[in-house]
Amino acid sequence: MRKVALELGYDGSQYVGWQRQENGRSIQQTIEDTVERLFHERVHLMGSGRTDAGVHARGQVAAMELQHTIAAEQLVRALNANLPLDIRIYRAWEADPDFHPRFQAKRKTYAYRFLQAEVMPPEYRRYYTLIRGSLNMEKMQQALSSLEGEHDFAAFRSAGGINLSTVRRIDEAVLLDDGEGKRIEITGNGFLYNMVRIIAGTMFEIGRGKLDPSIVEQALQNGQREILGPTAPPQGLMLMKVEYDEKRI
Amino acid sequence: MRKVALELGYDGSQYVGWQRQENGRSIQQTIEDTVERLFHERVHLMGSGRTDAGVHARGQVAAMELQHTIAAEQLVRALNANLPLDIRIYRAWEADPDFHPRFQAKRKTYAYRFLQAEVMPPEYRRYYTLIRGSLNMEKMQQALSSLEGEHDFAAFRSAGGINLSTVRRIDEAVLLDDGEGKRIEITGNGFLYNMVRIIAGTMFEIGRGKLDPSIVEQALQNGQREILGPTAPPQGLMLMKVEYDEKRI
Repeated sequence: MRKVALELGYDGSQYVGWQRQENGRSIQQTIEDTVERLFHERVHLMGSGRTDAGVHARGQVAAMELQHTIAAEQLVRALNANLPLDIRIYRAWEADPDFHPRFQAKRKTYAYRFLQAEVMPPEYRRYYTLIRGSLNMEKMQQALSSLEGEHDFAAFRSAGGINLSTVRRIDEAVLLDDGEGKRIEITGNGFLYNMVRIIAGTMFEIGRGKLDPSIVEQALQNGQREILGPTAPPQGLMLMKVEYDEKRI
Repeated sequence: MRKVALELGYDGSQYVGWQRQENGRSIQQTIEDTVERLFHERVHLMGSGRTDAGVHARGQVAAMELQHTIAAEQLVRALNANLPLDIRIYRAWEADPDFHPRFQAKRKTYAYRFLQAEVMPPEYRRYYTLIRGSLNMEKMQQALSSLEGEHDFAAFRSAGGINLSTVRRIDEAVLLDDGEGKRIEITGNGFLYNMVRIIAGTMFEIGRGKLDPSIVEQALQNGQREILGPTAPPQGLMLMKVEYDEKRI
């Protein structure tokens, strides 16, 4: 059986998240249903990881076993012609039969986007979080830098996470300009449930002067979720990139 | 009677345009209905100009006569608390009783935004136009520059325009980076119906090498709409700013 990998993006605003659920339409299900409609084949589309309701993706990677022999390039066109415009396939390719987009992911990059304004410009409302008042960017960058390296991120996890180990390696955590807005961009070898949204919520408190940048090191030491800031809302979050060993894909 | 002016933004995706129409919900009507619900007063909200279905605004200016004595600052909060999130009021102020947002507008700035990619990333689909393949930016900028000055823009107008004179003054027409995308930004003393979208459609043809930059000067000379490019789609267009004599506002 061939295994086809997809690189895809989506606007998560209208979905219950990546994963198939009882309470509404998911990205995964929408693509699986489209494949079935096109090729009369029921596939299971495995993603590199779940994204929650309202969270977006630019470079999600997913894979499925497919019997149909359609060429990868044509598959991209066929899917895009039949998927809603809030899901787009950028690329498809033949993957190793044992390619597993979740277990074999080496690194992921997430962006958390925010806009500083008094009133939210409508075109940003689905993709950015509004921050009123000023933020101290230097303190935020200082706190972000202290996340880098291998640490126990137990404090940076919401209840409901499924991971046994809470040790992760962050390779880079930076504050970047993003047109009119800004983004926190974090690359690491894995992320716990809500980890990036808790980091973002904590950074906003640090930027406002309500928390000291040293709170990050404290939380990495003592594992206490409650000393950090709130979980920032989903719409600011975007999965930017998933990286694999080259031979795997 | 007091006259209250508003500076506002909207995502035009879900509207038939600025102006009240039979065939669907307009921005104007949505705001007028909200004022009526809040203050039990039927107002007429006059905008600086119409925008078509799917066209957005960042800095539209509008004004209405209002009997209610609510302070301008509170009016902003009351409207934003009751309007849908795709319409936002940025500012309200007491205007001269004879303030007329359309007749007294001195300059307007429009942006036409586009993204060069093979597949449209979902989060850009409502606000950018997708351009596949490469564009020659130098030729586009050269053609844009030739629009500057006072000219007869008769060729740059769609049927349905209401203006008698087709002479307008363009103060600046430039190509700018806009995050991942780009934008054509044009400031002038007035714009004919679909003028910016015809300019944008023509620039894309020039960028692709299908039209020569000199086509702009030809069209300004001979007034022939048909030698220019197609009217670019509405979603790339945004009314950025409307300027008035300071004493007027």
